[in-house]
Amino acid sequence: MTFDLLAQDPATKARAGCLETAHGAIETPIFMPVGTAGTVKAVSQQTLKEDIQAQIILGNTYHLYLRPGLDVLRAAGGLHQFNGWDRPILTDSGGYQVYSLSNTRKIKEEGVKFRSHIDGSQHLFSPEGVMDIQRVIGADIIMAFDECTPWPCEYDYAARSLDMTHRWLQRCIQRFDSTEGLYGYQQALFPIVQGSTFKDLRIKSAEFIAAQGREGNAIGGLSVGEPAELMYEMTELVCDILPKDKPRYLMGVGTPANILENIALGVDMFDCVMPTRNARNGMLFTTQGIMNVTNKKWANDFTPIDAELGGPASTFYTRAYVRHLFQCQEMLGPQIASAHNLTFYLWLVKEARKQIVAGTFAPWKERMVKQVMTRL
Amino acid sequence: MTFDLLAQDPATKARAGCLETAHGAIETPIFMPVGTAGTVKAVSQQTLKEDIQAQIILGNTYHLYLRPGLDVLRAAGGLHQFNGWDRPILTDSGGYQVYSLSNTRKIKEEGVKFRSHIDGSQHLFSPEGVMDIQRVIGADIIMAFDECTPWPCEYDYAARSLDMTHRWLQRCIQRFDSTEGLYGYQQALFPIVQGSTFKDLRIKSAEFIAAQGREGNAIGGLSVGEPAELMYEMTELVCDILPKDKPRYLMGVGTPANILENIALGVDMFDCVMPTRNARNGMLFTTQGIMNVTNKKWANDFTPIDAELGGPASTFYTRAYVRHLFQCQEMLGPQIASAHNLTFYLWLVKEARKQIVAGTFAPWKERMVKQVMTRL
Repeated sequence: MTFDLLAQDPATKARAGCLETAHGAIETPIFMPVGTAGTVKAVSQQTLKEDIQAQIILGNTYHLYLRPGLDVLRAAGGLHQFNGWDRPILTDSGGYQVYSLSNTRKIKEEGVKFRSHIDGSQHLFSPEGVMDIQRVIGADIIMAFDECTPWPCEYDYAARSLDMTHRWLQRCIQRFDSTEGLYGYQQALFPIVQGSTFKDLRIKSAEFIAAQGREGNAIGGLSVGEPAELMYEMTELVCDILPKDKPRYLMGVGTPANILENIALGVDMFDCVMPTRNARNGMLFTTQGIMNVTNKKWANDFTPIDAELGGPASTFYTRAYVRHLFQCQEMLGPQIASAHNLTFYLWLVKEARKQIVAGTFAPWKERMVKQVMTRL
Repeated sequence: MTFDLLAQDPATKARAGCLETAHGAIETPIFMPVGTAGTVKAVSQQTLKEDIQAQIILGNTYHLYLRPGLDVLRAAGGLHQFNGWDRPILTDSGGYQVYSLSNTRKIKEEGVKFRSHIDGSQHLFSPEGVMDIQRVIGADIIMAFDECTPWPCEYDYAARSLDMTHRWLQRCIQRFDSTEGLYGYQQALFPIVQGSTFKDLRIKSAEFIAAQGREGNAIGGLSVGEPAELMYEMTELVCDILPKDKPRYLMGVGTPANILENIALGVDMFDCVMPTRNARNGMLFTTQGIMNVTNKKWANDFTPIDAELGGPASTFYTRAYVRHLFQCQEMLGPQIASAHNLTFYLWLVKEARKQIVAGTFAPWKERMVKQVMTRL
């Protein structure tokens, strides 16, 4: 995997780059749609590729491990073959889901014992095991097994957790570096900076992660309830320490404004369930602002959702029609809304990239942050 | 509207024709996907057009009248403008839904008083009112307001109901012929043959309907629980009486085998919720037979749903992946299954048409009826 830094904004820390993977190139900054169980909810692979122009999608190790399970994934030849997505895929380590979804989890030095949220069956995720699972899934980029601390979090807990996450990382690296991809192409392992919202812990972690010299680095444990200003403070602190010549991935972030602000601080990669999850409730992100398409005010609005974007979801259907679909609880409503929101998110990062290359990112970002967060 | 009969099968009563409407041509025999509330459930307009190659879709007057309502439809410029479907549309009269969905309906000579299944509000559907509503919806083909008798049904009830349906038809025709389309194109009114499964009533009704000389004719009140053989007997009886030079539409039918058998008896047009409704439960119709894709036996089947068809739903995704989507209750499962089943239904009638034109329909039909109803 190679990463080329192609432009840096003169007024901010924003960067434009290109990340080459075994399944193709990713132009950064990039937003990665979340495909938890090997499917970006309500969006077909054709729509993702042709209309949304997604360059990379996420899969969740926890979900894929439970269903369809490793036997099916191995028999299919990995997730790319299983779901027909031939562009890059990134998988998380399952750590976050073990804490947020499963019942009766028990965190020990060895790893995490948990019960499946589906059938209550008992499982162990260890750093080594999670590397092996991600070898079977076969994503281009795989994530280290970490503990994502909740917010707020006691300093002592965050400090102890961070040390364990670092020890787990060394076990991940050892396992990863002593194994090979199962399907004839290279995978890359990204370590994750933790440390809650404590500056000294974040600095310590960023330095530890940077020292590993991996092909890319991630920032975890943010966007978990802390104020946005605190998130930006941590991101900037960490980005200033992480190597410049490697991509930086801020996990689970965020609103359109969050993404623009973090691009300005030096982040290259983002993922978040927000565009698809909110879409399923009728919340649409547009170039002009945010609209709740279920509101009565759109009942007679026969203009498209967002004429400035491409793709049928944004330009073919009218607001009145999409509102009607939500009123009737018709599946096409969430389908259109999900495809539209992702089209917007991909447009946003593509446009940000153009502005960085043109050296005009800073004033554009100031304007856009206000515009895209306006309530329509 | 014009209908050209292009070929007749030498061994059966099957016909191939072409129906020209204001929104384009329909090659018969044809299957019409059901778009109850102005959307074919879980299928986008782009998929319907490009992948499924639907030539005409249905809308339900009852549903559209309640939501989005006539004000929105009128403001949009009719249903074609509202949902973006620029090919032909047919609307039913709402009669069937009034009986099957609404609460406390009261059938009188004037019309039917009913309460909305959505909010309990009270409404009256009369023959004149339903014509006016269908003018506002603006479908290319609209249906007369009738009573669809349940099965089984007492002879006396069926006879009295039939007479009322015939009186209602005359009121429909009077209203329809004294009004014009609202959006600058012609609509056609199809009357409906009723009479339950009583031969004499069906003959009487078919003769009455034929005598109206409308641009097309429909057969209603079948596929409501009666044995298939009884349905075929009624269809044949009625088709032999209805004019040869007008299209014949058998309402609400049916399984792939039902469709092939009824084509052989002289039916030109079909609609049914089966391909989409069953799809949402994981039942797939294929050229090789019927499969329940949720079964464990497909967990490791990495072949496409049906390689003999076109379109990504049938050929891009594997059975194992679609099964996984249903296991996880992911929306993409019903989306793929719905698009696939409709692709199959449209393939079936297109193939039937080719066989009629080639004069080989009869032996092909015998083989296909067995093949498509095989349990895989």
